[in-house]
Amino acid sequence: MASLKSWFPIPKSSHFSLANLPFGIISTASKPSPRPAVAIGEHCLDLQEFAASGAFSSLGFDVSCFSKSTLNDFAALGRPVHRSVRKYLQDVFVENTSLANVLQSNKPLQEKCLIPKEQVQMHMPMHIGDYTDFYAGKNHAFNVGCLFRGPDNALQPNYTHLPVGYHGRASSVVISGTPITRPNGQILENPAATPKKPIFTPCRRLDIELELGAFLCKGNKMGTNIPISEAADHIFGFVLLNDWSARDIQAWEYVPLGPFLAKNFGSTISPWVVLTDALEPFRCKGIPNETDLLPYLQEKEEKNVYDIRLQVDITPETGSTTTILNSNGRNLLFSFPQMLAHHSIGGCPMAVGDLLGSGTISGTEPGTEGSMLEITKGGKESITLNGGVERKFLDDGDTITMYGVCGTEESGLVGFGECSGKILPAPKL
Amino acid sequence: MASLKSWFPIPKSSHFSLANLPFGIISTASKPSPRPAVAIGEHCLDLQEFAASGAFSSLGFDVSCFSKSTLNDFAALGRPVHRSVRKYLQDVFVENTSLANVLQSNKPLQEKCLIPKEQVQMHMPMHIGDYTDFYAGKNHAFNVGCLFRGPDNALQPNYTHLPVGYHGRASSVVISGTPITRPNGQILENPAATPKKPIFTPCRRLDIELELGAFLCKGNKMGTNIPISEAADHIFGFVLLNDWSARDIQAWEYVPLGPFLAKNFGSTISPWVVLTDALEPFRCKGIPNETDLLPYLQEKEEKNVYDIRLQVDITPETGSTTTILNSNGRNLLFSFPQMLAHHSIGGCPMAVGDLLGSGTISGTEPGTEGSMLEITKGGKESITLNGGVERKFLDDGDTITMYGVCGTEESGLVGFGECSGKILPAPKL
Repeated sequence: MASLKSWFPIPKSSHFSLANLPFGIISTASKPSPRPAVAIGEHCLDLQEFAASGAFSSLGFDVSCFSKSTLNDFAALGRPVHRSVRKYLQDVFVENTSLANVLQSNKPLQEKCLIPKEQVQMHMPMHIGDYTDFYAGKNHAFNVGCLFRGPDNALQPNYTHLPVGYHGRASSVVISGTPITRPNGQILENPAATPKKPIFTPCRRLDIELELGAFLCKGNKMGTNIPISEAADHIFGFVLLNDWSARDIQAWEYVPLGPFLAKNFGSTISPWVVLTDALEPFRCKGIPNETDLLPYLQEKEEKNVYDIRLQVDITPETGSTTTILNSNGRNLLFSFPQMLAHHSIGGCPMAVGDLLGSGTISGTEPGTEGSMLEITKGGKESITLNGGVERKFLDDGDTITMYGVCGTEESGLVGFGECSGKILPAPKL
Repeated sequence: MASLKSWFPIPKSSHFSLANLPFGIISTASKPSPRPAVAIGEHCLDLQEFAASGAFSSLGFDVSCFSKSTLNDFAALGRPVHRSVRKYLQDVFVENTSLANVLQSNKPLQEKCLIPKEQVQMHMPMHIGDYTDFYAGKNHAFNVGCLFRGPDNALQPNYTHLPVGYHGRASSVVISGTPITRPNGQILENPAATPKKPIFTPCRRLDIELELGAFLCKGNKMGTNIPISEAADHIFGFVLLNDWSARDIQAWEYVPLGPFLAKNFGSTISPWVVLTDALEPFRCKGIPNETDLLPYLQEKEEKNVYDIRLQVDITPETGSTTTILNSNGRNLLFSFPQMLAHHSIGGCPMAVGDLLGSGTISGTEPGTEGSMLEITKGGKESITLNGGVERKFLDDGDTITMYGVCGTEESGLVGFGECSGKILPAPKL
């Protein structure tokens, strides 16, 4: 893929090359109302101001969506509109543009619209109606299953037939940079003792889960389903997702109805939504599924996931940063279109702004596991950080930062920026 | 309790006596915009029109909440305001009222505000942010546990220590009268066969679950909790809830993360929100819990649930109605304040409009079980309906109607009206 060079300065190492152009919600000190923007290099393009200049008039869509405090209205315009807006912005920013009069030669508009990243505050990109978390990272499901049931029964019999998932908590999905308070809760101090008597304590096994999230731009009516052939048109774009998990709370509470308080104290997403179109060049095959899938889950496209290089760093309160794992978006057994086709097959109504999580994305090699539970083999081993500090799970003051990026500097990186959160101590009760 | 007699005709058998005054959202042919109303006997009081007459001005709250299409803004004013509005309406409607000039002697306002029930269409009372379903009906949990694991292991070790719950799907909560489409999905035709290979089919074991739902009127900040002593102030009021369930889909999908598609094709609520204050006279003790609860779940008030007579009727497409079960709201091991204290103990942010389901409310005697799964002992026995028709689970065309009512005709009934839904055939795919 040839690089799209720009007349506007975009550092080669930026996640936000012209090949990307992800959408988010910003505010600034001088204009505190949250509004849509596009990330480009070290800057944000304020879409409200840019649209007000008449820039998008040739595209013929209602630009009032760029005066809203979430991306839901823009998303609801549908993928053909997202595509034409992104293409138009590439045309505006590309070097030797035929549209130089729109922005390149309009310095006053540049000053109004192009805001250095340091000057913006990011906000939740979408209003989330419902949030569903899947479990499509087969290596993670296998690793965790081994810890609990041994390798022979690690995966449940349904696992390869359908994308296992559960409903999550929409209200606790927060944007990168929001601190995460360690949850208090019930745990079994000694799971082997009888009778089983829980204690009340701050979580002692606080963990991360490295996931991708997909935001929907199109729903379906209750009682109908989204066919797999149409599912991709329902996906607005993608974010990184850290599904913070309280392993000890989870172990006690989760039978028989699944995880609850272990998952609803916070889930962090990266602030920029990378459009589905921007990831197209990075399609690849996922984990092969040897099961004969039922027709409603059969996808024509074999390359149904994305080659996204994923990385997780930990930074203790005092001390330097250590990368604790590297994984890849290809480590999924089911694609997002498959998840969506499954989610709606019984008639569940999906809506614009719904968020789907992939499940934890682990590789097969040491150092590629997407959670500390897996890296430390259930808390039996330690991770040694720079400076010799050890971790089995997260300490108060630890900051976790996730990164995801596709492509090369030569062709222009397509990345997600940061998905970051710092652990605050549990409240004293 | 003395009856509150009214100058306005209210049939003795009405669920909506002066002792009740539940809130809902109505529209009419002549005024199609949805707006708040109160049910009184066979009529609805249009609160937008009534407020516009200046009726509430002495109470000093912002009546713009009565021009909204949901009750969220009214709910958010808090329980002291709900209390004063309900008391004021009782004062306006009581016989020999000192406020006769407000409505009794104002015929033009009566004609504007008091609309016969047949002329209104009901709408969802609240915008639901998140929906959580608990499992606090101990008899149900025991009955279902017996079917799957036998009586010795029917309840999981955590069951009496915490209100087990899971996140539900907010988008599929619908109002009474909305048809429910039978879901298609994956089931194991022969669960004992190996290898386990699912088929795709319309659900064959479509069931009901008789529950109460509580709407919240107050939230908490993420990272903080709602103390049990304050939890009741967060509860706006109650509705009946039918948590339609696809038992065969559930059996295959639910390991290890809990029910998903088996529960998200529709959940029906009754349209009128019975205020927490209206249920105060009917407080009673629930199912005794012999477990020493952790302090955050210890409630001062022993009478922490409600004596609500519950009934479920089935009406086949052709044929008469049969009552298939009678239960009571007292059949809960945990109260709604306990559910809320637990839900938020790890810092999960709750919000105005959130819906909590109680879990299925079953008694201990035959005929009091809150689901067909329990009545038919897992589908092994049949229910004989009037006219000799038999049912194990629901047929297409069946209508299920749930009722709930407190008190006596003498003192004035406090009821929920109907929570009803008809089963439509699964779409052919």
